[in-house]
Amino acid sequence: MTTITCLGGGHGLFATLCAARTIAEDITAVVTVADDGGSSGRIRRELGQIPPGDLRMALAALSPRDARGRLWETTLQHRFGGTGALAGHAVGNLMIAGLTSVLGDEVAALDEVARLLGIRGRVLPMCPRPLEIEAEVVGLEEDARVVRPVRGQVAVASTPGQVRRIRLIPEQPPATPEAVAAIRGADMVTLGPGSWFTSVLPHLQVPELVAALDGTEALRVVVLNLVSEPGETAGFSAERHIHMIAQHAPGLGVDRILVDEDTVRGASERSYLERAAAGVGAEVVYAAVAELDADGRATGRHDPRRLAAALAGLGRR
Amino acid sequence: MTTITCLGGGHGLFATLCAARTIAEDITAVVTVADDGGSSGRIRRELGQIPPGDLRMALAALSPRDARGRLWETTLQHRFGGTGALAGHAVGNLMIAGLTSVLGDEVAALDEVARLLGIRGRVLPMCPRPLEIEAEVVGLEEDARVVRPVRGQVAVASTPGQVRRIRLIPEQPPATPEAVAAIRGADMVTLGPGSWFTSVLPHLQVPELVAALDGTEALRVVVLNLVSEPGETAGFSAERHIHMIAQHAPGLGVDRILVDEDTVRGASERSYLERAAAGVGAEVVYAAVAELDADGRATGRHDPRRLAAALAGLGRR
Repeated sequence: MTTITCLGGGHGLFATLCAARTIAEDITAVVTVADDGGSSGRIRRELGQIPPGDLRMALAALSPRDARGRLWETTLQHRFGGTGALAGHAVGNLMIAGLTSVLGDEVAALDEVARLLGIRGRVLPMCPRPLEIEAEVVGLEEDARVVRPVRGQVAVASTPGQVRRIRLIPEQPPATPEAVAAIRGADMVTLGPGSWFTSVLPHLQVPELVAALDGTEALRVVVLNLVSEPGETAGFSAERHIHMIAQHAPGLGVDRILVDEDTVRGASERSYLERAAAGVGAEVVYAAVAELDADGRATGRHDPRRLAAALAGLGRR
Repeated sequence: MTTITCLGGGHGLFATLCAARTIAEDITAVVTVADDGGSSGRIRRELGQIPPGDLRMALAALSPRDARGRLWETTLQHRFGGTGALAGHAVGNLMIAGLTSVLGDEVAALDEVARLLGIRGRVLPMCPRPLEIEAEVVGLEEDARVVRPVRGQVAVASTPGQVRRIRLIPEQPPATPEAVAAIRGADMVTLGPGSWFTSVLPHLQVPELVAALDGTEALRVVVLNLVSEPGETAGFSAERHIHMIAQHAPGLGVDRILVDEDTVRGASERSYLERAAAGVGAEVVYAAVAELDADGRATGRHDPRRLAAALAGLGRR
């Protein structure tokens, strides 16, 4: 495989990119832009920019693996200490924000950071402007069927209710043109793993990205989570994750669903999952992709090497 | 000339470095570390680091002059806008502070930024820890002879009184070893121009730097200011600037005093200046070093090209 485009955000995308860098020559990350918490949220509010945190983490995942690359990976991710106004700001967020202020263009700023640090591949925001996530949530009222809107990525990710679906505000935002091109031109496109409602499904609310996924000749792979996120998808079955994709992008075809073989073990559970997968045109592939600690226990994260091997074995369309 | 070491801080050092880069192969900036205002002061207080502002400005002066170097020079110097906690922070200050946090060492951090941005030369703090300036100030009481201490670089630079002398707190701080070596190994060492009490004289309160200036075979050049700083040296004559050097580093020899030919014009003024210069062993050299605007009026800044030509013409010891 030569060209891979990875859609997502946060730690899930970080894991996918760490895998992708070992099997692909050209890598593009297409990253959510709806974060409103922490360092990213403050930069977004103060400077009116795209929240840089998920973009920074993707750049870190693609940093060179020599001593200097590791130093800058650590520096990008480093959060200031102390008890003042800088505390918690990630250095990489401030570099991206500063360059964006000077250049007036996030994509140019990200390309320049990537060039400066010798990063393999390209990191793009899914949309050239900051967005908000609004979720339909049940379980917040006495009558558990009552649907209430919850707005903001932090609020959605931590609601005690159950999220039914999400939408972006403004709705139907434009896609970053370079992201559309990267999906169309790839040999493989991955979606997930990650926080399903706040890092995975947002891409499917951007019409031009869905159209690109529809029109590409790339192998379209959904990488399922190993564990469900507390709050976001607590108690959600594997097939429910697939149903969510069908619900947020009706008619969109997927080619493979990559599932950790230990996460979904039971025969009936697998048959439900395979039926959901067939509904979006996908074949389910089971593989050992979980990271194990020294005692052989699952850490809850994907192992980049195992994930890379599994992705490389998926073949073409 | 091949090796030049420039001592100072702020805009004065910026001008000297812009001149030095056109005539020297190896350039080292040795920079004051007592700033307590603005972005630098906040970083210093929040993170316990050397204030990075003057170091950042020196890095900017030595940035490559191609399009990419100019972009990063602009980015280092860029101050965040908005109305939040980031407003006023220079991007370069935050990069230096972040790398210093990761590496635990300012000199290593400055070297890495210089390497990353392809900067010509080396930027060093004069002392490896943050310092404070305390000034003896007269003219603050009804009885104008009463001496009162004023502490902090911002306070000293803006006192309505008249500064008599300064000292560093803690007193007799250590010098950065690489700065000592750069003074000893240079063909020329410059001191000034700049805010005399807060950017020039502080170096002379670091015993190891004075010993290095004493022992070096470099041509030691004091570059006088074109205009006196309001507050700091308002109304000070040119020879008084020299007396200040003798007062703060008794016995220190200087080889040349470089003076703008239009700043000190009168015969008697020149003879006072030359007598003061002789007191520190120096010859006064008059040259056209002021920057002129399109209408031929002095801007109050040194012109890097004229300053470079004047420095190159000073010869050796």
